[in-house]
Amino acid sequence: MQTVELKHAYRLLNHGPTVLVGSAHAGKTNVMAAAWAMPLDFDTPKIAVVVDKATLTRELIDASGVLSINVPTVALKDQVMAAGGMSGKDHPDKLARCKISTQAAAHTGVPLVHGCIAQLECRVLPATTHVAGPHDLILAEVIAAWADERVFTAGRWHFENAPPELRSLHHVAGGHFYAIGEPVSALPVANA
Amino acid sequence: MQTVELKHAYRLLNHGPTVLVGSAHAGKTNVMAAAWAMPLDFDTPKIAVVVDKATLTRELIDASGVLSINVPTVALKDQVMAAGGMSGKDHPDKLARCKISTQAAAHTGVPLVHGCIAQLECRVLPATTHVAGPHDLILAEVIAAWADERVFTAGRWHFENAPPELRSLHHVAGGHFYAIGEPVSALPVANA
Repeated sequence: MQTVELKHAYRLLNHGPTVLVGSAHAGKTNVMAAAWAMPLDFDTPKIAVVVDKATLTRELIDASGVLSINVPTVALKDQVMAAGGMSGKDHPDKLARCKISTQAAAHTGVPLVHGCIAQLECRVLPATTHVAGPHDLILAEVIAAWADERVFTAGRWHFENAPPELRSLHHVAGGHFYAIGEPVSALPVANA
Repeated sequence: MQTVELKHAYRLLNHGPTVLVGSAHAGKTNVMAAAWAMPLDFDTPKIAVVVDKATLTRELIDASGVLSINVPTVALKDQVMAAGGMSGKDHPDKLARCKISTQAAAHTGVPLVHGCIAQLECRVLPATTHVAGPHDLILAEVIAAWADERVFTAGRWHFENAPPELRSLHHVAGGHFYAIGEPVSALPVANA
């Protein structure tokens, strides 16, 4: 994984991938799947993600004030499905059951998920809970970001040059995903 | 276009497509491109979208309280690029320049964009502006939704059975998109 310049961090989520949300507090670590995540600002980079109040992830984020957003791949499809379908409240050994491994980020200790093509270390924005909270929405600042240089170089994704199992996943419904597909380039805009 | 049941409306955005945001007020109509949009709730369905305060679209949404979210296709790539690169403030004839045509939705009058594979008619949620607003975030309820039955049937996308120009677009950077790709199915979760 290579460090991504913070001004390019939004591009890791710009194409709308399904993500894994990492959280940790007081010796507990969890990872859940989330299809509802997006960039919120460029620079300082910020993100928005929906995390249900009933989840262990939400408890850990609310307690720690930090989270990670990770972009999983086709190779991780079964882990993503398992992480989305199993609660860390019911299963304290959820990560082992899901075959998900993590390492703690240096600054905040949030778990970064192995095998993902992007990892964003994030801190929850203060004073956003009274409106965002009722909608289960978490707004956070990106404080560090990394990407797999086989698919993200020079500040953007290049999936077409890499093995297909490194493509991002985009959840449709009930365990059915699409992989991100082929490049499409638009005409430049004549803006005169 | 066929009506989509409101309980399935979130699925139109679940896989993270770039969208076109439609707005209208007092005789002005605009359409802009936005990569930062996502579902916010299932049922009642809600969405979140980032719309910069400096845009005409934001002025029209703030004045009317309504907006549309439309999912464009590979066939519309140049229109999406143009709608993202040209301001309706600078060009009152933006829609004609962008070769975008719309029709007014029955209930609210918001413009629905022709040629899109999904259209969501939305009403801004009250009392969300004081936190969401500073982050250029609009939270809205979906009050009606439609999809192209060539690619969305039985409550979910089926791109693999349709012409490739009907695939959704996912913006990377600077006019470079990926089309949504091939289906990937995960193993069911053993949740015992």
